[in-house]
This record gives sequence, C-alpha cells and structure tokens, in this order.
Amino acid sequence: MHFKFKINENNEIVNYQNRGMELEHEINDTNSYYRDNQIALIYKRPTPIKVVKCVNKKITEAYFEEESTTDYYGLCKGKYIDFEAKETTSKTSFPLANLKENQIEHIKNVTQNGGYSFLIVSFTDIEKYFILLGKDLIEFINQDARKSIPLNYFLEKGFEIKRGLIPPLDYLEVLEKIFKF
Amino acid sequence: MHFKFKINENNEIVNYQNRGMELEHEINDTNSYYRDNQIALIYKRPTPIKVVKCVNKKITEAYFEEESTTDYYGLCKGKYIDFEAKETTSKTSFPLANLKENQIEHIKNVTQNGGYSFLIVSFTDIEKYFILLGKDLIEFINQDARKSIPLNYFLEKGFEIKRGLIPPLDYLEVLEKIFKF
Repeated sequence: MHFKFKINENNEIVNYQNRGMELEHEINDTNSYYRDNQIALIYKRPTPIKVVKCVNKKITEAYFEEESTTDYYGLCKGKYIDFEAKETTSKTSFPLANLKENQIEHIKNVTQNGGYSFLIVSFTDIEKYFILLGKDLIEFINQDARKSIPLNYFLEKGFEIKRGLIPPLDYLEVLEKIFKF
Repeated sequence: MHFKFKINENNEIVNYQNRGMELEHEINDTNSYYRDNQIALIYKRPTPIKVVKCVNKKITEAYFEEESTTDYYGLCKGKYIDFEAKETTSKTSFPLANLKENQIEHIKNVTQNGGYSFLIVSFTDIEKYFILLGKDLIEFINQDARKSIPLNYFLEKGFEIKRGLIPPLDYLEVLEKIFKF
C-alpha cells in the first residue's frame, strides 16, 4: 500500500500532485485496507477489451472498449456494492457529461436489484468528497433538465466522506452508518 | 435468448449436442432470464487480458491470463453472488484439478465476507446439477486429502438444481429456498 500526502505549514494533511489520478489511488488504497482487514472485497473492473485477432494464444489486434458499467464492484458483509468514482475541478457542480448513458443505466439496474450503487465524487478544488446514492442520482436526472448536479444537491442528498490517513477514504464506514448493515 | 433442447421419443426434454459448452449456455440463458425479469443481475467475468504493447489505441500485443477468480458474479435482492460453473463426465466424483488454487482462495474470501459463493457442478453423464456452497467446498478440502469430491458429498451437502425450460437452470430459486432471502 502507498499513501500520497504531505503535511503543510499549518500541520494539515494535503494531497500530492497528480490530481487527475488522486481519487483512484485513494480508493485503491482504501480497498487494499478493506481487503487486508477483512472488511470488504472491492474489485476494480478492468477496461473491457475487444479482441479482433489472436494467433497461437498471442493477441495481435485488440481495442479498449467504452465502459458500460462502473469502475468498482464487490461486497461488504454480503451486500453487493457498485460505484463509479469521478473527480471534478468545478467548485459549484458536477457535470453530468462525466457519466455515460449506459453507466447511468447500470447504476439504475443495480439499485433496482437492491444493491448499493452510488457515485463517489471528489470536488478537488474545495477538497470535498461525497457519496451520491444511485436513487438520488436517478431522481435528479428524471426531475431536472440541468446538465450538471449542483454542489448543493450533494450537500442536501449526498453523504460527505472525510479524508483520513489509513484508510484514506473510508466510504464504507459512511455507508454502514446510513444503512446500519 | 436461445434455448437448446429437443423432445425425444419418450416426450422428454433432452439436451442438444455440444456438451462441453452446455452448462455455460444454460447459465447464460438463465442469467438473461433473470435480467429480463428483474430477478437478478449476474455477470460473466471476462477472461483477464495482459496488454503488453499498445500503439495509438490499437493493442498489438496482449495475452489471456489465467483466471484468478470465478466465472460469474452479481447480485440478487442486494446479496452478492459469486460462482464457478464446471462440468464433469465422471459419474462418481468431481476432480478438484478442475479448480485452480487462487479460485479456491477467491471462493474462501467471498464466503468470509458474507457473500454467496459456490460451485455449480454438472455431472453430464448422469444429468445432475448441484450447487456446492463455498463453505462445504472448503470443508472438504481441509478435511479430505482426496483429489476429487465424490458424488455422495454433493448428494449429502450440495443442493440439486432441476433442469427446466425457461429458465433452463434456476439456481437462484434453489439458493433463495435455502437462505430465504
């Protein structure tokens, strides 16, 4: 496991550079912590690959396909967990262009089948992280024609995840508190 | 959805040829039925691919990797489901050589995290299908030095799945009856 942070002049923990991948690293480190401590098994879905040509077990032509599901899935205490992680530099809203239509469809399907499906959105410039449940995402999309979800909606309907040290982003603790599983 | 069966001279439903892939087709058709009827979402895991060379979005060298998990995963009523499907032509036992060590490790991990992890084994020559729960698989491996699990163990500890028409192999109905979820 690796942690990427430093202590600033006010004795606060601050993020390293490389912001674009920061959330993914934080989640991967958190998932390693969950696995090592038998809290949960959360897997990163590999990017789907379309194989076009394969000669003697060697693939010689293939292409990465567009994601049709979410980044992560797994289980915690027997419950099915499924989520997409996104960063935005916007201070005021999360642009829905970040999500593909079939990803939203996937989140809807998992929600309908009783799974915990959600987004983790990192507002990097204000250093806030939120869980937005699939049902609240779908409700927003159904009721609102806007092309981005305002920060206020996250503050009202979402659940904030406080950044920690080990694990860096304890999102399951937040979920467990809400749903008491 | 496609179904592969025919009616024999005794008016019984019998399987088509192509036995080697039969179980996989039956499970895939069953999973389509589950999805279409909003009973469950069960996914087939793609074979992992190791990408070695990629030029301008075209992958020019890659290899299929050995499976380290199981064939299928997903959710039913919020519960995490995870299983491996295997066929054997043996009439008396299931050879453990069919399972790789890290697959057994995976089944163990899912079981420990409260998920429903199991094998579906098809004894093709006697036309019987069984669910063997992860805990019973692990128990057998821990207690018995034998290299195959006798049919009797499936009869005693496993749960038989009766072959049907639509869906062809309703394994979740069997699980739901056992665990009342």
